[in-house]
Amino acid sequence: MSFRRLDPFTMLSPVPAVMVSCCDKAEGAKPNIITIAWVGTVNSDPPMVSISVQKRRYSYDMIVNSGEFVVNLVGKKECRAMDYCGVKSGRETDKWADCHYTPVPAEGLDYAPAIAECPGFLACKVRQTIELGSHVMFIGEVVSCGVQEELFDEDGSMHLERAELITKAHGVYQKATDVLGFFGYSVARPDVLKRRMSVYRKKK
Amino acid sequence: MSFRRLDPFTMLSPVPAVMVSCCDKAEGAKPNIITIAWVGTVNSDPPMVSISVQKRRYSYDMIVNSGEFVVNLVGKKECRAMDYCGVKSGRETDKWADCHYTPVPAEGLDYAPAIAECPGFLACKVRQTIELGSHVMFIGEVVSCGVQEELFDEDGSMHLERAELITKAHGVYQKATDVLGFFGYSVARPDVLKRRMSVYRKKK
Repeated sequence: MSFRRLDPFTMLSPVPAVMVSCCDKAEGAKPNIITIAWVGTVNSDPPMVSISVQKRRYSYDMIVNSGEFVVNLVGKKECRAMDYCGVKSGRETDKWADCHYTPVPAEGLDYAPAIAECPGFLACKVRQTIELGSHVMFIGEVVSCGVQEELFDEDGSMHLERAELITKAHGVYQKATDVLGFFGYSVARPDVLKRRMSVYRKKK
Repeated sequence: MSFRRLDPFTMLSPVPAVMVSCCDKAEGAKPNIITIAWVGTVNSDPPMVSISVQKRRYSYDMIVNSGEFVVNLVGKKECRAMDYCGVKSGRETDKWADCHYTPVPAEGLDYAPAIAECPGFLACKVRQTIELGSHVMFIGEVVSCGVQEELFDEDGSMHLERAELITKAHGVYQKATDVLGFFGYSVARPDVLKRRMSVYRKKK
């Protein structure tokens, strides 16, 4: 194996493909949905995520004015809508209506709604705004989360991996599937490995 | 469907699981590998990624002192080593030797090497350092990239999606697989959709 050397580009893969929902704080403002792949977890305590948005995007002013955004996770069922919300602008069409999506309140936020149909959401308040060049990075503190009831087992354990969440690699969408291990599995005792992995293998 | 409401946590999923390689700039310093899931693309032009690292980690001072790090993509073959490099500390063991990995120069960097065995790498120079709480975020400008020759078609097109790249969701590793679409597929003409998708379906 050998590397082909390339000029620098945004090659990090696979990155999450998420739908960010937001709303201006002006009275009667309508919320929008924007698809974002430049998103990541940036801090554990307090939990924080960053999203990077171009200033020309319709959602940019909404996030600046409200100081809020919601990161909605995208599963296999939402893949087409996620792509659509990345291609179309809220200036021209109502993406909520186009995708048959329903805005629902996100605890801890006053303006930005969550998308009721997605596997889960992270409600965020903007703590820092950093201009980087083509994009502006909003660092948001996660103030509440929601996960679909169907992704919990009876013992209360959460199984996001069952949502077949969507990732993006170099312009292509794939789903995350086939559990290969868990944090620490490379050094786990054989009995622990067997017990833990059986949980992921018994259900899709 | 309905949401179970949860206290805020680092729920964003699936996130990339990558191995970051770095080295102090002191003469004779040995490089280290640290597994990081708090990583994301944050800017397109210039291309930038962020990684978030706890100060107590062995790699933290190396990145601060050298101002460099390399993000190495992780495919299915590297999953076990990636987990191992997240569990073990370079203070106690030589992860390069343990994983049978080879450091190779990363163009544009003076200290941090890339991992020869990974599907690809992004060589980064630190441009900003931001303290967020539990973690410090390093914003790195990508100064060069490398991708394994086997991930290119004869026509020069790159297919990162064939590396079965690894993602992490709530402590579980999955691989990205099954191409569901490409950017714009939701509004593509039927002939374009058919032609583009055939590229992803003909090979694993």
